[in-house]
Amino acid sequence: MHITIIGLGLIGGSLALDLKKRGFATRITGVDNNEQHAQIALKKGIVDRILPLSKALKKTDLVILAIPVNASIQLLPKIMDSVDYQTVVTDMGSTKGQVIKCIAQHPKRAQFVASHPMAGTEYSGPNAAIYELFDGKVAIICDKHNSADWAVQTVENMYQKLNMPLLYMDAQEHDIHAAYVSHISHISSFILAMTVLEKEKSVANIFNLASGGFASTVRLAKSSPQMWSQIFEQNKDNILEVMDTYMDYLNLWKSMIKEGRFAEIEQMMGDANSIRRILDTPPMERLRASS
Amino acid sequence: MHITIIGLGLIGGSLALDLKKRGFATRITGVDNNEQHAQIALKKGIVDRILPLSKALKKTDLVILAIPVNASIQLLPKIMDSVDYQTVVTDMGSTKGQVIKCIAQHPKRAQFVASHPMAGTEYSGPNAAIYELFDGKVAIICDKHNSADWAVQTVENMYQKLNMPLLYMDAQEHDIHAAYVSHISHISSFILAMTVLEKEKSVANIFNLASGGFASTVRLAKSSPQMWSQIFEQNKDNILEVMDTYMDYLNLWKSMIKEGRFAEIEQMMGDANSIRRILDTPPMERLRASS
Repeated sequence: MHITIIGLGLIGGSLALDLKKRGFATRITGVDNNEQHAQIALKKGIVDRILPLSKALKKTDLVILAIPVNASIQLLPKIMDSVDYQTVVTDMGSTKGQVIKCIAQHPKRAQFVASHPMAGTEYSGPNAAIYELFDGKVAIICDKHNSADWAVQTVENMYQKLNMPLLYMDAQEHDIHAAYVSHISHISSFILAMTVLEKEKSVANIFNLASGGFASTVRLAKSSPQMWSQIFEQNKDNILEVMDTYMDYLNLWKSMIKEGRFAEIEQMMGDANSIRRILDTPPMERLRASS
Repeated sequence: MHITIIGLGLIGGSLALDLKKRGFATRITGVDNNEQHAQIALKKGIVDRILPLSKALKKTDLVILAIPVNASIQLLPKIMDSVDYQTVVTDMGSTKGQVIKCIAQHPKRAQFVASHPMAGTEYSGPNAAIYELFDGKVAIICDKHNSADWAVQTVENMYQKLNMPLLYMDAQEHDIHAAYVSHISHISSFILAMTVLEKEKSVANIFNLASGGFASTVRLAKSSPQMWSQIFEQNKDNILEVMDTYMDYLNLWKSMIKEGRFAEIEQMMGDANSIRRILDTPPMERLRASS
């Protein structure tokens, strides 16, 4: 299968590596508006060739968008205009509502499959691309009923090749859950990083005192600002709602600490502990447990 | 050296394992008010024998307290009353101000060394004890000037055997930095866990959508409620101050998201990214860089 990947960063690059190695792709064409990234991807053998966008959309079986969500929304209608009638288009973005909206009335809508592989690291760019990034993580396909069966099948085959269990949901439902589980984690990490950087005027102290717990909680604050500001923009309403809940809890805890209600805090932490049974269950088993 | 460890959980148990294996301890006596934990530690060979507290304090070179901080404050004066004049006592607690205060006037004060190994996992109990928990992490010794040189030397030797770089600071200074770097991380994780558990009424959705980023940020929410409620109690004032900064940032972000100021958010995330150079530097190099 001939595949075109637009955006050769962490996601696009990692997809290219495994889809080629596992025989799903026989030729991978890369597109990146960052010329340096394109050249790195070519030199590292992540893609077979680099083409400008207009040429990369012809005579290809599958086009994968792996660029920040605002860029996807701008680009997707033009891509759908240009692709052949047997080409499948999918995107890897972390929000789905706006992407689907921007081509809802497009005559080739059925060739588009909205999806989201729930995998990543805090690094970005083609040098962050790694093998086996996706294995065992969940992939979500949204609004399947608006895509042609043969197009959905192609995207399903791709995710199966990556060893990703599949889930199906509405785009709207996806964006709500993504806000609850993924986006608020990033906000909480970024805020933690900013707080500590402000409070600890001396970097030496952070250096010395940063233990494993801090490192793990603040890891996501290393993520790409460009990518994440666009996710926050696309998923604004859901994110504001979950931030309200987060801040209500913070306010409650602050009162409890101030008033010395430590027994109540201990009990709440016991409730929070129940996150254990989720974290300690591997994704494959999670899917079985919840289906 | 004969060592008595009070509290055979994650920290006490892990200390026992490495101090024995590396030849620092020739005999380890364990004390735990949880009889089941004591028996597990004995059966697993973590300690050589179990004794009641009163008997475990005699004819021992070093007493290590590895129990929750409130319990340390209650127990420490009694321990100091009972130990021989050549015995060194140290504690592993995450807050230091109150512990030092409770024996400030004790005639054997100089035999006590306040310390804090900045290591741990989110698990607890003797079954959580592991080898090499401490290697490469930083250990802090507080208010060294109030301890006898020979007592400090014993504790320094212990931490060197564990491959821990040493830092020295005031107890007060320690508690401020611990609030900034360690305690707020735990609060942020616990609040995240509670938020997601509340928002996602369906556990199935968390199961399915919990990706690596969420897992890493919320990991600390698996920590022991008993241990952490006591740390919050002991370090109340410093924690409230850092929570204020954290909440100010959250409020600012909420306004920016609401008002669509995404370029500003992107810039702030870029600033937060500078946490990278701290996280990506190993502790040993951090110490060199900051000294």
